Amino acid sequence: MAPNELYQYSVLSALMSGAATSGISLSQILSYGNHGLGTFQRLEGEMIVLDGSAYQMKSDGSVIPNLERDHGEQIIPFAMITSFQPSVTETITFDSKQDLADKISALLPKTQNHFLAFRIDGEFSQVSVRTVGGQLSPHEKLIDVGKRQATHTFESIRGSIIGFRSPAYFQGISVAGDHMHLISEDRKFGGHLQACSATERVTLGAATIHRFDLQLPEDGDFRDVDLAVDNEGIQSVEG
Amino acid sequence: MAPNELYQYSVLSALMSGAATSGISLSQILSYGNHGLGTFQRLEGEMIVLDGSAYQMKSDGSVIPNLERDHGEQIIPFAMITSFQPSVTETITFDSKQDLADKISALLPKTQNHFLAFRIDGEFSQVSVRTVGGQLSPHEKLIDVGKRQATHTFESIRGSIIGFRSPAYFQGISVAGDHMHLISEDRKFGGHLQACSATERVTLGAATIHRFDLQLPEDGDFRDVDLAVDNEGIQSVEG
Repeated sequence: MAPNELYQYSVLSALMSGAATSGISLSQILSYGNHGLGTFQRLEGEMIVLDGSAYQMKSDGSVIPNLERDHGEQIIPFAMITSFQPSVTETITFDSKQDLADKISALLPKTQNHFLAFRIDGEFSQVSVRTVGGQLSPHEKLIDVGKRQATHTFESIRGSIIGFRSPAYFQGISVAGDHMHLISEDRKFGGHLQACSATERVTLGAATIHRFDLQLPEDGDFRDVDLAVDNEGIQSVEG
Repeated sequence: MAPNELYQYSVLSALMSGAATSGISLSQILSYGNHGLGTFQRLEGEMIVLDGSAYQMKSDGSVIPNLERDHGEQIIPFAMITSFQPSVTETITFDSKQDLADKISALLPKTQNHFLAFRIDGEFSQVSVRTVGGQLSPHEKLIDVGKRQATHTFESIRGSIIGFRSPAYFQGISVAGDHMHLISEDRKFGGHLQACSATERVTLGAATIHRFDLQLPEDGDFRDVDLAVDNEGIQSVEG
């Protein structure tokens, strides 16, 4: 795919409803880009793809690096990935996720009907991440899995954030608004970004996405699942 | 694109909100498939693509054929198109759009979370089609343009129906449910299908779509438009 075209496997509502057993291989996902996020079979942790390398960030706090080398066959039930090529780069500070969102909007104005891809590198003053710890049963819903999620908080941590912004009218297919995963520079910690601030300047790169390529699973789980949008549920686990 | 992958240009809510001035060329649209439907700049009629040929069906009842030959540069603000390869074919009768929908569902069960492409050829006992007649002002909403639509009714007419079924969770991006355009065998009449029945057997071919490739416009109109889903409006003009 061309730079800044977004490939997505499955839809968020399927994951919300617990369809996380089947998927496609990590190798296939990585063939669509070098910048991405997602999750693993049975919701066992958070995925981040950074410069083409994939990491599994688990709820016990461990990180499995360079999955593309030895774990390319791993099943991915949901992912978003692009060949990221920032059209704008800026150094910024921010005191909250909302402040960060506002700064991204200022950098790429009038993009509320498009997707954005972005990346932030540097030292973050405060970071709170969560990681899901896997389903206890095959169709356990993400909102229930999320109740057992582990939250970790860090101060003065260097790392990278990979993010996608989806337009409001894509809620349920994707996560409307900003969806971000973080990994530390030493690749030892990370997860789904819940809160973040940066008092020192960090580097933000971002690009608008005009093409969205969605692959819908063909398996029985996806066929059966109820895909009615659960706004509140998405807010509580992906917000 | 591979067979039965769906390419869509823009989103239905943009059209509903009157963003119909800009788009991409018909030639570009036709590079993505041979089976499609859509509309024209300023909502001037209904588009159908049948076996790779595009037709403009206008509200005065006229049809401009083979647009790909001399009108490839025409601006298309919204279209859905695929390289159609039916996975199932059946001869059926049906006494209403709902009955037709039920028969398609029976032919491709458990596909409510996927898109479908289908085509019906033969003699229809009764057909009612409408054609939109164009915007009176640049951003006139589809619901208002629709109030001036021309409706034509035919009996015992031979022709072809090109259709797409979109899953409920795609409402606003596409038309949830069945969206069909018809053209007569002599290519003299056609439009957006409002009602239809077939007491003699007609041929139905259909296929499930697992891949959805969405191109979002980059122009100012699309950037500014409000894309909140208008369920009632979509029902009234696309139902």
